[in-house]
Amino acid sequence: MSNVTAFLKRLVLGRALRSEELGETLLPKRLALPIFASDPLSSVAYATQEILLVLTLGGLAYLHFTPWIAAAVVFLMTVVVLSYRQVVHAYPSGGGSYEVASTNLGSSAGLVVAAALLVDYVMTVAVSVASGVDNVISAVPALAGYRVPMALVFVGLLTAVNLRGVRESGRAFAAPTYLFVAGVLLMCGTGLLRYLLGDPPVAATAQYGIEPVPAEANLVGLALVMLVLRAFTSGCTALTGVEAISNGVPAFRRPKSRNAAATMAAMGLIAVTMFVGVTTLAIVADVRVTDDPCRLTGLPDCENYTQRTVIAQLAAAVFGGEGSFGFFYVQAATALVLILAANTAFNGFPLLASILAQHRYLPRQLHNRGDRLAFSNGILALAVVAGVLLWAYRANVTSLIHLYILGVFTSFTLCQTGMVLHWGRELRTETDPRLRRRHRTSRVVNGTGAVITALVLVIVLLTKFTEGAWLAVLAAAVLWVTMRGIRRHYDTTAAELAVTDPRKELAPPSRVLTVVLVSRLHKATLRALAYARATRPDRLEALTVAVDRESAAELKRQWEEAGIDVPLKVLDSPYREITGPVLLYVRSIRRESPRDVVAVFIPEYVVGHWWENVLHNQSALWLKSRLLFTPGVMVTSVPWRLESAALADHPAARAPGAVRRGEPVPPPRS
Amino acid sequence: MSNVTAFLKRLVLGRALRSEELGETLLPKRLALPIFASDPLSSVAYATQEILLVLTLGGLAYLHFTPWIAAAVVFLMTVVVLSYRQVVHAYPSGGGSYEVASTNLGSSAGLVVAAALLVDYVMTVAVSVASGVDNVISAVPALAGYRVPMALVFVGLLTAVNLRGVRESGRAFAAPTYLFVAGVLLMCGTGLLRYLLGDPPVAATAQYGIEPVPAEANLVGLALVMLVLRAFTSGCTALTGVEAISNGVPAFRRPKSRNAAATMAAMGLIAVTMFVGVTTLAIVADVRVTDDPCRLTGLPDCENYTQRTVIAQLAAAVFGGEGSFGFFYVQAATALVLILAANTAFNGFPLLASILAQHRYLPRQLHNRGDRLAFSNGILALAVVAGVLLWAYRANVTSLIHLYILGVFTSFTLCQTGMVLHWGRELRTETDPRLRRRHRTSRVVNGTGAVITALVLVIVLLTKFTEGAWLAVLAAAVLWVTMRGIRRHYDTTAAELAVTDPRKELAPPSRVLTVVLVSRLHKATLRALAYARATRPDRLEALTVAVDRESAAELKRQWEEAGIDVPLKVLDSPYREITGPVLLYVRSIRRESPRDVVAVFIPEYVVGHWWENVLHNQSALWLKSRLLFTPGVMVTSVPWRLESAALADHPAARAPGAVRRGEPVPPPRS
Repeated sequence: MSNVTAFLKRLVLGRALRSEELGETLLPKRLALPIFASDPLSSVAYATQEILLVLTLGGLAYLHFTPWIAAAVVFLMTVVVLSYRQVVHAYPSGGGSYEVASTNLGSSAGLVVAAALLVDYVMTVAVSVASGVDNVISAVPALAGYRVPMALVFVGLLTAVNLRGVRESGRAFAAPTYLFVAGVLLMCGTGLLRYLLGDPPVAATAQYGIEPVPAEANLVGLALVMLVLRAFTSGCTALTGVEAISNGVPAFRRPKSRNAAATMAAMGLIAVTMFVGVTTLAIVADVRVTDDPCRLTGLPDCENYTQRTVIAQLAAAVFGGEGSFGFFYVQAATALVLILAANTAFNGFPLLASILAQHRYLPRQLHNRGDRLAFSNGILALAVVAGVLLWAYRANVTSLIHLYILGVFTSFTLCQTGMVLHWGRELRTETDPRLRRRHRTSRVVNGTGAVITALVLVIVLLTKFTEGAWLAVLAAAVLWVTMRGIRRHYDTTAAELAVTDPRKELAPPSRVLTVVLVSRLHKATLRALAYARATRPDRLEALTVAVDRESAAELKRQWEEAGIDVPLKVLDSPYREITGPVLLYVRSIRRESPRDVVAVFIPEYVVGHWWENVLHNQSALWLKSRLLFTPGVMVTSVPWRLESAALADHPAARAPGAVRRGEPVPPPRS
Repeated sequence: MSNVTAFLKRLVLGRALRSEELGETLLPKRLALPIFASDPLSSVAYATQEILLVLTLGGLAYLHFTPWIAAAVVFLMTVVVLSYRQVVHAYPSGGGSYEVASTNLGSSAGLVVAAALLVDYVMTVAVSVASGVDNVISAVPALAGYRVPMALVFVGLLTAVNLRGVRESGRAFAAPTYLFVAGVLLMCGTGLLRYLLGDPPVAATAQYGIEPVPAEANLVGLALVMLVLRAFTSGCTALTGVEAISNGVPAFRRPKSRNAAATMAAMGLIAVTMFVGVTTLAIVADVRVTDDPCRLTGLPDCENYTQRTVIAQLAAAVFGGEGSFGFFYVQAATALVLILAANTAFNGFPLLASILAQHRYLPRQLHNRGDRLAFSNGILALAVVAGVLLWAYRANVTSLIHLYILGVFTSFTLCQTGMVLHWGRELRTETDPRLRRRHRTSRVVNGTGAVITALVLVIVLLTKFTEGAWLAVLAAAVLWVTMRGIRRHYDTTAAELAVTDPRKELAPPSRVLTVVLVSRLHKATLRALAYARATRPDRLEALTVAVDRESAAELKRQWEEAGIDVPLKVLDSPYREITGPVLLYVRSIRRESPRDVVAVFIPEYVVGHWWENVLHNQSALWLKSRLLFTPGVMVTSVPWRLESAALADHPAARAPGAVRRGEPVPPPRS
């Protein structure tokens, strides 16, 4: 690695951490809450709005369903939080839904959960960042043209922060989350107080009516139910990320489970309070929001009208207009927390991927910890996929949100079902009546959770599949198949490689027949010969390929002149290529004596600059890779370091941290 | 190489040729003429026009200089052809100007010639193809929008034909060149006959006057001389490629020198005849041609007027209009021969590059013959550079032509000067009076050539430098410096590698200390241990890096359980990386016993599909490349072929020609 790239890496990442420093990155509750809960908390910023956006498809007629839908979401969230508190206690190792489903329902179900969660983490990043950018644009309309670049810059910043490691990313995220919570609660409190004092806040849009979309006007029966259900599933975005804490238990300080459960309870309480507050305030203030501003009646010049988010409208109404400090504070905190909410996924995705890699369902590189003890490869993978998604969907929240939630509820349902089986199994062996009672209660909680989330999953499938959720389903399915394939590959490899009889497998081949490849007679060749001879082979010969006859004859002459006592075998190569004749020759040796091993020695130049490689024939590299495919062969490179290599090696070795990075210390000249 | 790419390669190149088939590609004179002389012959198509284009800058006033300028060009060409006939006889090995200058004036002068020639070959391709495309567009104006793509397609076709080998490219080029020569001679003959019979051909543009460019009107004194000299240097484009035959002597049939000299004489005669004929006819027919059609007086709608080339105007005038068969025949033959003229460079450039590579001034890959015995790498390099140039200059002849000629006259001058010294040296030792007389004549011929070409070189520099020739000078200078650098690198390397005391350098190291790298305990590891043991090292140990402590402890336990009698050394790696600790350890061994050699054995997986590599840690590759930088180390790869590798290997091995391509025959399963 060059010094420049090494310096840039340090600049972005900070100093490398020793493995023992892992303990230092454990999280206290006050940091764990913003890290793992910024997603569910921030979704308050759009959940209410998403409910209203669906209901107003039918004009103002169905807005009276809002409180009921909000109540259903609150109920659902309570059930899910209670259910996951059980998970945190029963499975403290951090596998979360994936581990629960795998253990209780088998590995296929576990993989379904894993695939669904991985897809959902990507969606969390995409939706949160897109929504955050939306709010930035609401506050500063001049930025409207930079939607996609802004989104990508934010993803890049999140990536950098996360590559620096969990604890520091927690610090970066603690403040905005708390500022957001404080701002929203203050806004709701002030607004409701004003309502109680008889001076209710009124949204700037309260004056407008809404024209219904023709297809959705005056619905009755099933059609109306479907519309309300669609509004409900849109509101369910508030539940995304609730399971993040159950995946992150190992990152908590001890006692891990208790701290995690407490954090989860706090998160549930705050989220429900905020959601109820915002929704109530939206009803009180008569907020109007539609998918198309031109459906607002009484609005002149709808084409150039920039619709503000529900939170923005409320903040303006409560704090006294769009120029007030309160408005800007809430708007800034909202934008910030939405972008940071993506961080929940940046914590969850790499952890889950690392567990899957450990279980050999994903490439094992995803289990490597980087310089800062974060799972760097997972972080980078998430950033790339989310970035592509944001770019492909032009960072449009409405398009992205349809791909969302499906995975969340898939994993909720399978996880809660698994928990029911878990408690059943516990009850079969448990005898302590107090514990038995507690297990039974837990089973009821998780059973309720399973039934309700399954119901919601069906509703989500019914209402969202054709609107984009099919892509999420497809991605999860592809992921599922791929993960099984990877596992099969690793299993096959492990079975092939499993040691059965160490004594037999350690038995050396009967003879070593050594071949030294020679192109010209020089010091590098002689060194290879000397090293080869030092391995005391049963037979030693030099081998050259006669690409043209004159130089082969010249080599033969020099060979004899130098009095080298190793026979030189010359292979004809009528088509002027080197690899083929050598492979054929090596294979012919093996055919004659299949129980022996052929050792091929290749003298190699080591140059100091990459461009110097152009000046030396690179046939050795190709030949080596082909020889490795030949059975019963070992390939030995005998390097000859050119002076330029020694010089080039020198300064790099002195760069700070070079030793740790695997670069050599200044070598004694050979 | 996959079967598809192999098939495509065969389709473009034809079957591979054995080295012994090289003799078959020698050329008879009737093929050598069109191959090596299509450039100077075809330049008749634009040389006259270039003279006129400069003269008409001053309106019609200076056109009376045309015959004198043409006479100067003819004189110059005669001198150069006579001079180069001497070169062909004196240096039959094909180095041409480069060899003459190197031998007689030293390697620096030789390299100047080489750099100038390499640049000029590139320019020949660019200018000829661009001019050819111009003529195609003159005949079919609808193609005007496809100038650059057409030029690139032509370069691609030339490349493909040349990769197939010299002889076949000769066949492809013989017919059009002869058709062109026949057409032009017939045109000149007919036209002049008509003139003598009192019915002179009249060009369609003869009716127009030409308004002078203000700056060039009514010149006197030095300014007029400069204009005439500029016209003269433009006419000198007729001389480009004259030296091609002297570079190509080895491609001639025996007696090579005599055949080459005869071919050169024939070429000179034909070129001079055609040039004189075309220029005379242009004067007779009152052809008008300007750099800007709007300077033609009496022409309505000059903006949309497509100016025809001089050849096209003459053909139309002689053969009865632009619809006549004669017009189309001459036009087609001209376009074709111009594009094929680029082939002179496709013959000359790779040959010169190969000679330079043999002299270690260029990477030695340029000296490799491809499947069809052509110098494939040189051909590809030329095609790429010329393609870039055509693309950058939008295939515009007028822009490109300014970069031209400078190199030609540089090499002419240095070559002729070298020849003068050559004859002087011959005369010092030669005693036979007949030969002495002949040598003296030769010296006079070459001396005249040297003086005259030097004069032209100065004129070219004066008139063309600021118009674009500086770029050619710069390119040649960069090339010159680079070639010297490459030679220095090769020389340093050769000196470093030169065998001084074979017996001492063959002495094996005192001991071999062998280290087998272990990550986990499986069959691949055991095989590496077994092979390592078979080399009977003086010390054998297994080495593992403890990236995390638990798995290292587990490995240690398994190791003891399996009863492996090789000590397992565990290296701590607090920063979780593998390369650094291994390098440090290997170096510490070497420090303890500097006279020993360390053999590092690395068990390696061989997989069947590239994507399977993603599933296995690739740290071995990086580690290997770093170890090669460590003195006193040899690195042995012990491959373990996974089943998938054996399967993947199978079908490829059966593809036709696989063995020759260096792919393995179906291997016995290991």
